[in-house]
Amino acid sequence: MKPQRRSLLKRLFASVAGITGLGVAASKAEASVAAPQKEVFNVVNEKDVPLFSGSTKLGNLVFVAGKGYHKEGDIKVHTDEVLKELEKELIKAGSSMEKVLKVNVYLHDLNDYKGMNEVYKGRFGSKPPVRTTVAVYGGVPGDSLVEMDCIAYI
Amino acid sequence: MKPQRRSLLKRLFASVAGITGLGVAASKAEASVAAPQKEVFNVVNEKDVPLFSGSTKLGNLVFVAGKGYHKEGDIKVHTDEVLKELEKELIKAGSSMEKVLKVNVYLHDLNDYKGMNEVYKGRFGSKPPVRTTVAVYGGVPGDSLVEMDCIAYI
Amino acid sequence: MKPQRRSLLKRLFASVAGITGLGVAASKAEASVAAPQKEVFNVVNEKDVPLFSGSTKLGNLVFVAGKGYHKEGDIKVHTDEVLKELEKELIKAGSSMEKVLKVNVYLHDLNDYKGMNEVYKGRFGSKPPVRTTVAVYGGVPGDSLVEMDCIAYI
Repeated sequence: MKPQRRSLLKRLFASVAGITGLGVAASKAEASVAAPQKEVFNVVNEKDVPLFSGSTKLGNLVFVAGKGYHKEGDIKVHTDEVLKELEKELIKAGSSMEKVLKVNVYLHDLNDYKGMNEVYKGRFGSKPPVRTTVAVYGGVPGDSLVEMDCIAYI
Repeated sequence: MKPQRRSLLKRLFASVAGITGLGVAASKAEASVAAPQKEVFNVVNEKDVPLFSGSTKLGNLVFVAGKGYHKEGDIKVHTDEVLKELEKELIKAGSSMEKVLKVNVYLHDLNDYKGMNEVYKGRFGSKPPVRTTVAVYGGVPGDSLVEMDCIAYI
Repeated sequence: MKPQRRSLLKRLFASVAGITGLGVAASKAEASVAAPQKEVFNVVNEKDVPLFSGSTKLGNLVFVAGKGYHKEGDIKVHTDEVLKELEKELIKAGSSMEKVLKVNVYLHDLNDYKGMNEVYKGRFGSKPPVRTTVAVYGGVPGDSLVEMDCIAYI
């Protein structure tokens, strides 16, 4: 096999692997690929045992944990802080607000729907993610007025 | 490099790229690939600012927003209308009910579980998606008796 | 085209296809690829009509249905049994607890949060999935104290 051709194959393969987030271990005469593995960020422990991660990544998909805000404030303050928490996780994982595909919003009270929207709108850019909103009336952990999670890409 | 070989490489590459939903920009001697980008459909604005999309698409994955029905009717009417709304979004994004992978169902009242099932069953073909159902007792926006979202593929 | 080169192309292509979970139908001079198709496991019927699946698989992604436990027991018993149900579905689909990316937890009562955590922690290995937890106060079907679903990979 001529060096030129092998080189093209390698570049081609590296491109495909790069896009799908695969690691490449190319030996001299043969290209082989490791299966995609999960990466995790900001692991939270419970008594030194892993409980959940702030985000997980597989290939070009990023999953962010449900975020609440556990201090004083109305729905606008809580929505703003929760969105900032999502953004921190997204950036940590190599993504961004503009690359979010799906958001789930869990309100403490459905009466906060409009206030949440006022702060929420525009925060994900001109091509916003899909969204599913429900209220759970006392069901959000840690007295947060709203909890949100998301799925994004890199 | 001989034309024949380059041609095969291009076809191979086009196939892989087509499957994973990637755009291809092949120059003369080298193939390069653009990273997958999000597409969005049916964007809903709040005071001219993008709030959420009806669906988002990345590669061959499609995410559909939570859908409710905001008119009169019992759980069977609401379930039927919500499923029709999901189907519209799926078709718009190039998918279908048969290609749904996961559905989340949020009932207003758990007593509607059986009525919802009666209308829901069979609507996604012989290989139905997974489903997670909970009731949120007043937590569905816009007085809908049920809200559903889904993840699908194309 | 020399046999040696074609052989390398085939191996390369088989590797890529294998990773992305695609079927390969390679003819003599040309490689062609079938689009990824959904697989489903443990389909549940309602009066002989498909209602939902225990899990669905597309490429290397696995989606598991919401699981509850419908017998006696406190939150620790229910959490343990629900996690075992998730694991069964994951293994059936070719995945495992260590390969879970995202979990959604729906508690009957937010007061069970700590008890759920005690049993939950460590069950997904050292790189745990993200998690979103809310309580729905009577909204979990079948009197289960907790319902969980997940997204994983293979």
